[in-house]
Amino acid sequence: MATPTSAGTRDRMVEATIALMRRSGLSGAGINEIVRESGAPKGSVYHYFPGGKQQIAQEALAFHSRRVLAFIDASLAGGRTPAAKVKALFEAFAQRLEKGAFGASCAAGAVCLDLDEDDGALRETIATAFANWVALIDRHLAFPDARRARSFAGVVLTAIEGAYIRGRAERSGQPFRDAGQWLSEAAAREARPRERKS
Amino acid sequence: MATPTSAGTRDRMVEATIALMRRSGLSGAGINEIVRESGAPKGSVYHYFPGGKQQIAQEALAFHSRRVLAFIDASLAGGRTPAAKVKALFEAFAQRLEKGAFGASCAAGAVCLDLDEDDGALRETIATAFANWVALIDRHLAFPDARRARSFAGVVLTAIEGAYIRGRAERSGQPFRDAGQWLSEAAAREARPRERKS
Repeated sequence: MATPTSAGTRDRMVEATIALMRRSGLSGAGINEIVRESGAPKGSVYHYFPGGKQQIAQEALAFHSRRVLAFIDASLAGGRTPAAKVKALFEAFAQRLEKGAFGASCAAGAVCLDLDEDDGALRETIATAFANWVALIDRHLAFPDARRARSFAGVVLTAIEGAYIRGRAERSGQPFRDAGQWLSEAAAREARPRERKS
Repeated sequence: MATPTSAGTRDRMVEATIALMRRSGLSGAGINEIVRESGAPKGSVYHYFPGGKQQIAQEALAFHSRRVLAFIDASLAGGRTPAAKVKALFEAFAQRLEKGAFGASCAAGAVCLDLDEDDGALRETIATAFANWVALIDRHLAFPDARRARSFAGVVLTAIEGAYIRGRAERSGQPFRDAGQWLSEAAAREARPRERKS
């Protein structure tokens, strides 16, 4: 039976895994690193996660996915028009990168670029996370053309993942803000009834 | 003195490092993996690269950077208008991802998400590569507003790096093609004299 203390240990190990993945992907989140980062007793990983690294990685990505969903939801709610929502979203991610001193990005993105052919289950977890994030962005923007709306929401996610890469390389939140500027301009046009269709 | 054979071995090791980085970043390009992937004699890494993994990683990223520059240049040249150039560029990257069976992306992007604080030199090499690619895209598009032109060229690179992440997760070239569609629409508008300024 899990005691409050053991639940705390388990949670700390998941949090440590997310933090390590955000820094350097799957390769950075080895069992030894998780034990060190979480301060958990050495033998506890296989006690709490009998499936080992695969299980803890899956749980960490699923937890990360829900947390980012809530972050995107709160950030988009900060704007009143689609254009303002897009701008607020990229500004929130820029600040998230800056707060982490340009050393942490998206756990899903970082793990994704470490995957090999044996990691099909992790890849599917990441693809599901991306699909959920895109669907949420799509719902917030509510563009009139459903097909273009979904495509645009996907491009917003594409730009977030790419801006983390450029932002870490360039140690700057500017790639987020540039993407936010151009995509908010596109969102403003898309939200209007389209002249060429009228 | 390097013989043709030794030059071949050295080149094969750099190529192997690039291939490994494209698959799983810095963590995937260990000395053992480089030896195995290149078929080079075991002792040859420190013979050709006395600086070890750090040196071979630097050379691989610098070589990758020049190769991608040429790829971007050739791809952008395939379009006659800025909008067509942008679309051709993203189509070329979509096909590049598909040819690699969704298992390989950009070495610079993949390494970037593996970096820790001790990897400052590699980070700078990647930042320089990104700056060179953005400057090239900027020159091809030749928008009237120089500040917006540079910002847009950066967003094109942001979208390329992000589309690699989504494309690998979703096993699809569509994230590249969606980004190409939206950014080519923005490019078409930007290339025209702007009505709100006239």
